[in-house]
Amino acid sequence: MKHINIESIEQMGSRYRANFFNTISGFKSANLIGTNDNFGNTNLAVFNSVVHIGANPPYLGFILRPTTVERHTYENIKENGLYTFNHINENIIEKAHQTSAKYQKNVSEFEACGFEEEYLNNFDSPYVKESKIKMGLQFEEEHFIKANHTILVIGKLLHAYLDEKLISNDGSIDLTEAGTVTISGLYEYLKPTKLKKLDYAKP
Amino acid sequence: MKHINIESIEQMGSRYRANFFNTISGFKSANLIGTNDNFGNTNLAVFNSVVHIGANPPYLGFILRPTTVERHTYENIKENGLYTFNHINENIIEKAHQTSAKYQKNVSEFEACGFEEEYLNNFDSPYVKESKIKMGLQFEEEHFIKANHTILVIGKLLHAYLDEKLISNDGSIDLTEAGTVTISGLYEYLKPTKLKKLDYAKP
Repeated sequence: MKHINIESIEQMGSRYRANFFNTISGFKSANLIGTNDNFGNTNLAVFNSVVHIGANPPYLGFILRPTTVERHTYENIKENGLYTFNHINENIIEKAHQTSAKYQKNVSEFEACGFEEEYLNNFDSPYVKESKIKMGLQFEEEHFIKANHTILVIGKLLHAYLDEKLISNDGSIDLTEAGTVTISGLYEYLKPTKLKKLDYAKP
Repeated sequence: MKHINIESIEQMGSRYRANFFNTISGFKSANLIGTNDNFGNTNLAVFNSVVHIGANPPYLGFILRPTTVERHTYENIKENGLYTFNHINENIIEKAHQTSAKYQKNVSEFEACGFEEEYLNNFDSPYVKESKIKMGLQFEEEHFIKANHTILVIGKLLHAYLDEKLISNDGSIDLTEAGTVTISGLYEYLKPTKLKKLDYAKP
């Protein structure tokens, strides 16, 4: 086994290091985050860091880096308070990935990347029509990470939309049936296949 | 599409709600976190919330719930300052899942679940010998999430071990070649297959 330590990390080139450490955490969730400002200008960006925070009440978080692309998402969330998560499925991978390009603030990635905005039940934030599992969230709290100035943004889930057939009797959602993909690193999209469903473990 | 809102969430049973909201965030990383206290008593627990925080310097985070199982991990990290992440691969799914059982504090899940402790390069925290991608981390900072009393724990990566053949020329790690699995919800383990590797997106 190869041993990578502080010295070998420092010798890595910046792209190499970014790829290495973006893959080493394991497989990631694949979501498009939809936002808008108070003038109705919309924004859409791919995020691979959405993470479960709690079920009761339902909270979801994501990690935001202080880059141009992600800053538009952040500014809109702070301005509006509402935002959406939309699963990326195998039919929209290229379009979803394209939202990571550095578009100007006045360009909507919905239009630039070929997605249709969808507004549901008077929730003032754009869902992605092409997504099969979508959530409407309300900003709850944020944590500034001192180590590298990234931000954990936490929201409360107020709405979820999905085909009823995707929900199993035990409440779990069949992500493979929905075509939801996973991400490795920054550029690779994969489709998971079920191996094993286990039970609640006891000693 | 079925619409789930605050009212329908409140009407869900607790197991149903846990399954629903643990699956709705998308696919998750699958890691075993190895820890030990200052007396050398070891602990091992499955976590599906490891998330990339940054590449330079390399930081990784995970979300910890205040349950018995996860509290042992937390207490050891705070006591020792060092801990390990170990990818779960398709050969060790059942054993890895079994670490989620509520063992007493004096029981090591390494022994109870059939894993071998591995100590490398004087790093005083146990790696999982059966894992093919392993990391040694040092506690960096923590954030208490007010909404539901979970904790974001962030560590700095000091060591990584993996087969050199798993590292591509661009620095990314081939997780499918390593047999690393992904988790949906709390109980389902899946194996991803590559669909598309895209490039850095430009407008």
